[in-house]
Amino acid sequence: MISIRRYQDADWPLIHPFLHATFAAGDTYAYAPHSSEAQIRHAWIESPAATYVACTSDGRVLGTYYIKANQPGLGAHVCNCGYVVAQEAQGQGVASAMCEHSQREAVAMGFLAMQFNLVVATNERAVRLWKRLGFAVVGTLPGAYRHQKLGLTDALVMYKALPA
Amino acid sequence: MISIRRYQDADWPLIHPFLHATFAAGDTYAYAPHSSEAQIRHAWIESPAATYVACTSDGRVLGTYYIKANQPGLGAHVCNCGYVVAQEAQGQGVASAMCEHSQREAVAMGFLAMQFNLVVATNERAVRLWKRLGFAVVGTLPGAYRHQKLGLTDALVMYKALPA
Repeated sequence: MISIRRYQDADWPLIHPFLHATFAAGDTYAYAPHSSEAQIRHAWIESPAATYVACTSDGRVLGTYYIKANQPGLGAHVCNCGYVVAQEAQGQGVASAMCEHSQREAVAMGFLAMQFNLVVATNERAVRLWKRLGFAVVGTLPGAYRHQKLGLTDALVMYKALPA
Repeated sequence: MISIRRYQDADWPLIHPFLHATFAAGDTYAYAPHSSEAQIRHAWIESPAATYVACTSDGRVLGTYYIKANQPGLGAHVCNCGYVVAQEAQGQGVASAMCEHSQREAVAMGFLAMQFNLVVATNERAVRLWKRLGFAVVGTLPGAYRHQKLGLTDALVMYKALPA
């Protein structure tokens, strides 16, 4: 059973290791693979509007996501989220649960749509999951991602209008 | 004759009025129409990698543009630019000159591509100009722009690979 709640400061040492490992792999997120702990904290905790953690019933942290406006002012009704699942919790529906939770949170915050700016095209599991959760590929950015194993790789823009 | 050079602090009182007027119109840029001078300065001068001004031979400022990486780390080889032309200098090729200049600057800085994230679909003059200068529409974001006269309006993602 996965429960999702707002991030608290005490969660940082629990989520930093798998955020670091995910960015270091350089195959899904744009954050520099050698980002410092302070840079990761800024990107994931300080810069977004809100951050959440997904936990087991006994409090083990399985994943985390953030939500923020994707643009200022006249584009601020569209939000952006990022999701990271701990390596040992892959394949258990954590990303799916977080994405569904984030859509409800986004609606509660007044957002009208959700946009992913840079879904790495080779990250097929993510692309399939976002499609299943109602996102459409609305654009393809040729070579916009410098994949650490594959080199310059296409990235997708994915978008979903949220229920009012 | 239009010449383009790097922005200097003394240019601020010359460009702020037309940046303010452009954002206040709420029909081309996402920046909040009521952005403060400090917010505009942050967006246009402090946050980008570099800012430029386009001038006449006698030093009158006709327009300005910024350039910055569009994403961190593994997406930082793609740049983003914004261009604003003074109202009284519209239709004189200033935007075109700035966009061509920005592409040369981008190549000199090592960028491999240029991306516009939110080209308002109703801004037909801009869309036509960017297409003429080699940009392709690679995506459409439904209702992603809150146009101050037209309400929720589609926005285009436009992209151009730059010569090596």
